[in-house]
Amino acid sequence: MTELAIGIDGGGTSCRAAVADRMGTVIGLGRAGPANILSDLENSLVNIVESARQALRDAGYGDETASTVFAVVGVAGANVGDYGQRIEKALPFKNGRVVTDALISLQGALGDADGIVGAVGTGSVYNARRNGKLHGIGGWGSIVGDQASGARLGRDLLERSLLAYDKVRPTSPLTEKIMAEYGNDPERVVEFAHTARPRDFARYAPAVFGAAEAGDAIAIEIVREAADAIDASLNALSWPECPTICLLGGLARAYHPWLADRHKTLLAEPKADALQGAVDLAVKLMNDRQRGVA
Amino acid sequence: MTELAIGIDGGGTSCRAAVADRMGTVIGLGRAGPANILSDLENSLVNIVESARQALRDAGYGDETASTVFAVVGVAGANVGDYGQRIEKALPFKNGRVVTDALISLQGALGDADGIVGAVGTGSVYNARRNGKLHGIGGWGSIVGDQASGARLGRDLLERSLLAYDKVRPTSPLTEKIMAEYGNDPERVVEFAHTARPRDFARYAPAVFGAAEAGDAIAIEIVREAADAIDASLNALSWPECPTICLLGGLARAYHPWLADRHKTLLAEPKADALQGAVDLAVKLMNDRQRGVA
Repeated sequence: MTELAIGIDGGGTSCRAAVADRMGTVIGLGRAGPANILSDLENSLVNIVESARQALRDAGYGDETASTVFAVVGVAGANVGDYGQRIEKALPFKNGRVVTDALISLQGALGDADGIVGAVGTGSVYNARRNGKLHGIGGWGSIVGDQASGARLGRDLLERSLLAYDKVRPTSPLTEKIMAEYGNDPERVVEFAHTARPRDFARYAPAVFGAAEAGDAIAIEIVREAADAIDASLNALSWPECPTICLLGGLARAYHPWLADRHKTLLAEPKADALQGAVDLAVKLMNDRQRGVA
Repeated sequence: MTELAIGIDGGGTSCRAAVADRMGTVIGLGRAGPANILSDLENSLVNIVESARQALRDAGYGDETASTVFAVVGVAGANVGDYGQRIEKALPFKNGRVVTDALISLQGALGDADGIVGAVGTGSVYNARRNGKLHGIGGWGSIVGDQASGARLGRDLLERSLLAYDKVRPTSPLTEKIMAEYGNDPERVVEFAHTARPRDFARYAPAVFGAAEAGDAIAIEIVREAADAIDASLNALSWPECPTICLLGGLARAYHPWLADRHKTLLAEPKADALQGAVDLAVKLMNDRQRGVA
């Protein structure tokens, strides 16, 4: 009997899959198109399954093996309505479970331990595991949430650059650089802002951190506010014995020095990535089920 | 010789026109469709002219009179690129001038006097006339500006309601009411926020002011921040001898008690509305030109 477990990280850009043996050793990798189950359930399912088949082929197995494997798929929206269950029912595996992207990234970062994982990139979202129980906050998007996201850093920078242009607030080397980029024409800044997606605003995040580290007063204010928002979210999730905080995402490193000391002392590097977290959960699922039916 | 002056307030919802005699007495009113010259120059021109013709008819004149009148059109975007000049060239009047919506509303509010006019409604924008010279700031839209607008008040309220839901910030009666409106489901708040236009967010402004007046701590924070933004903009425009500050727009009255004392003491009611401001300018234009050619 083939004993294979597949972990799948179903992302908005692509689906990545890894197939592992009973001991958890990864023996094949696959990749396919994006999974956005809330906006396109059908193609998401196609891409999830295709990434798994590619991983099986990479490990030397035929497509027919899919029906014998245990799989865990982590994907955003798995906890919204019945979207997760609809994917679960349609999966062609022996046993397939659909969980949130938050769970696989927490599993990857912390392994089986308790702790808090914050993801700060284009968005910002926080998840804690305490006595094995999961609790998440944030991730409400850049319009009314994601206070520490790159998108908010960029939007704040443009707002403060316009306030500086109007002489309502002080200028700084960074706000002057931004206005110069737009030919010192506020209309052009507004035009950009009204068509910009979160990732377009987020492109300014490295410039904000760079300027803050160089002492730019406006950049420091922007980063200080965003880091305070992280601290406030960590406060909301934390408990006295919380052993670990992991920050993930493109801005994680940049935020480290700005966090409150009580959080800094708990910071740890993530053990592994979300794909590995999905693999771990799939191996666990396989072993639990086989023990259960033995 | 017919001596008529027409003022036109070309707005995004409709164009309003008023025809006056040489003494400035309004003798006819007209209304037509919207003027959005940046997005639809051609129809804006049609509506501007139609509102003027209606005003002439209302005063008992035939359409042919249009070619004998002096007119001032106030319209947003008149100062962007050559949009204002293009309208000006196409107007069928004896003499037609196109100016910004800001100028006619300032003229209406202050008459010929110096002072500052702030418009706080769905957006927020400020204009000063000092020694006869105009200077404007703000009005950059709700994404990266308009800090005192109803749109920002509403967006802030939803953001703080989500932070309260996540227990990152304290709740208040108002945030609890908002979350209850959305079935205590943050996803529904996010869904609303991602399709809401500025005026949709702005619908929450009266609730924010109402709650702030009743002592709701979160509402007070939101209004306090927005009023501070008004004070900062007034500081940027003000000068020691500035005689008057007028707040216009749907939120003007609500903000009065929240402003800094130094601004409160200068507050005055607007003398008239933007349409009357356009009429005043048109009468002035007529008298100046006729004196010039006499």
